[in-house]
Amino acid sequence: MEQSKGQQSILFQEPPYVIDGASVVGDKEGKGPLGKMFDRVSEDPMFGMNTWEEAESCLQKEAVEILLGKSGVSKVDVKYMFAGDLLGQLIATSFGLMQFDIPLFGLYGACSTMGEAMALGAMTVNAGYAKQVISLASSHFASAEKQFRFPLEYGSQRPLSASWTVTGCGAVLIGKTKSNVRIIGTTTGKIVDFGVKDSMNMGACMAPAASSVIYQNFMDFGIDESYYDMIITGDLGYVGRTILIDLLKEKGYDISGKYTDCGIEIFDQNSQDTHAGGSGCGCSAVTLCSYILDNIKKKKWQRVLFVPTGALLSTVSFNEGKSVPGIAHAVMLEHCN
Amino acid sequence: MEQSKGQQSILFQEPPYVIDGASVVGDKEGKGPLGKMFDRVSEDPMFGMNTWEEAESCLQKEAVEILLGKSGVSKVDVKYMFAGDLLGQLIATSFGLMQFDIPLFGLYGACSTMGEAMALGAMTVNAGYAKQVISLASSHFASAEKQFRFPLEYGSQRPLSASWTVTGCGAVLIGKTKSNVRIIGTTTGKIVDFGVKDSMNMGACMAPAASSVIYQNFMDFGIDESYYDMIITGDLGYVGRTILIDLLKEKGYDISGKYTDCGIEIFDQNSQDTHAGGSGCGCSAVTLCSYILDNIKKKKWQRVLFVPTGALLSTVSFNEGKSVPGIAHAVMLEHCN
Repeated sequence: MEQSKGQQSILFQEPPYVIDGASVVGDKEGKGPLGKMFDRVSEDPMFGMNTWEEAESCLQKEAVEILLGKSGVSKVDVKYMFAGDLLGQLIATSFGLMQFDIPLFGLYGACSTMGEAMALGAMTVNAGYAKQVISLASSHFASAEKQFRFPLEYGSQRPLSASWTVTGCGAVLIGKTKSNVRIIGTTTGKIVDFGVKDSMNMGACMAPAASSVIYQNFMDFGIDESYYDMIITGDLGYVGRTILIDLLKEKGYDISGKYTDCGIEIFDQNSQDTHAGGSGCGCSAVTLCSYILDNIKKKKWQRVLFVPTGALLSTVSFNEGKSVPGIAHAVMLEHCN
Repeated sequence: MEQSKGQQSILFQEPPYVIDGASVVGDKEGKGPLGKMFDRVSEDPMFGMNTWEEAESCLQKEAVEILLGKSGVSKVDVKYMFAGDLLGQLIATSFGLMQFDIPLFGLYGACSTMGEAMALGAMTVNAGYAKQVISLASSHFASAEKQFRFPLEYGSQRPLSASWTVTGCGAVLIGKTKSNVRIIGTTTGKIVDFGVKDSMNMGACMAPAASSVIYQNFMDFGIDESYYDMIITGDLGYVGRTILIDLLKEKGYDISGKYTDCGIEIFDQNSQDTHAGGSGCGCSAVTLCSYILDNIKKKKWQRVLFVPTGALLSTVSFNEGKSVPGIAHAVMLEHCN
């Protein structure tokens, strides 16, 4: 049963379904262009908890609860969870998901984690290892600022190339139960390092990885941009968008007419002061679970290439003068009647 | 093609082979009881690099190079890597593996990561998604002390319940090429939290998770301890060992006659001053790639349950007063003629 496709891809013989998705976000995301599409918007950035990390765990917990509720599935019928976040040692995930008592594969792909989680989830269902699994990823503006940048209390100014970490968790139930969205294949990314060392310009760090995995998706499946109705990256933002389009043009592909980025869609650049756009694992995850799945369900888009993008840095590596390499994972989504 | 087995397990229809393994360790590990079995022992804890994190990346790089060399496989013929480490945002992995240009699934399961990586690697090969993959995990004593505890320069005293993080990386090539070791199934663990808050007693934090996944392995496959020649946990050490044996006795299983722990095997407790034993992702990974695989190849052990164990904490969660939950992932290894 050969389902390997090309160098980095998989074409599923029995494409698993995205049975349902759920999204929980913070106040700022709720006031953005996609605000009405999220399942829950919390006005309290602490989500009633005592620490930012607990707040992020709460995002995960609520997203999974809403997902199980919407889909009418009991947690005992979910065999595995594939999940991750941006915090050191994935503590948002550990403390957010433990109460569900579901076997867990902890993942770290920086902001590409939702792509990694969906790929592994679909691989697991398609192979018959599980009837259904949950894939999810989260980020929280304040826990991420604390982890990667400066305490909020400093009131640091941010350069225009900086992005704004999305407070949100998106979770999908992947399984064999028919829905209007299928995962037909995946292309798993390599680490790509162009030597950029500016952690306040993550779009530039990640764009080469996005270009690499999109190009490889075209190669592995023998297709080009015309195959898709939409190609959607995770959190390249305005700076990374331009770089990605240029990099793919150099390789002979013009995606500019059918390309967007979750980091661009989620905030209003003019009114929300989010500079280069949204970022964080939660950015692509909640945009998927609202805007993207909605448009595929309605058949506005028949075929979408969803490409969450990650910047692989830590404060330790950054302070030691290392570059910020990128990684991106592509998931092929298709409308299904 | 139903390969799901029980609540948390998978039984492979075409069990993938552990084609080969490679291990690279530090000086202290080289002087321990397994010293002669490792592929490379480095006298220099910095591995010729400038920082502890770079040294750990170097461990990963060398382990993969040795593995490819031993098995005569070119890196272009390895479709995916499944890898992780203990550092925030997996920087040892990102910077250690990027040069191989192999698609990467980044994993975090604390010290259970080698079990998670082998499970996902075997799931990928068995399903026909890849002909061969590499699964690996690393830790480094000094990068882990810096990440989780105190700077080495403080010369802090350690309680007897504390374990010693292994400097080492173990990597296995999993694929369809016949060898003497097969992965016949997996049982994926849940997060188990007994409320222990002592990060200097990780054996006690992890033992309940190990007990849970071993018990579930017995349930899912309808077996008991008599099925295995050896049950080997990751890094429970002397304290966790006793707790695990007691917890399983309470459930009616006595594994004491055929049980050991990589953290116990890797150091000599009397002469090496390692208190409760070895720990870290690298502990189970290098013990697997030396002592365990050797004994399965020689048929000293026909059936082994390999159970890497992880303590899910960060300095942030610890300082915020959270408990240290555990997770463990079981991999069923079998001799094959």
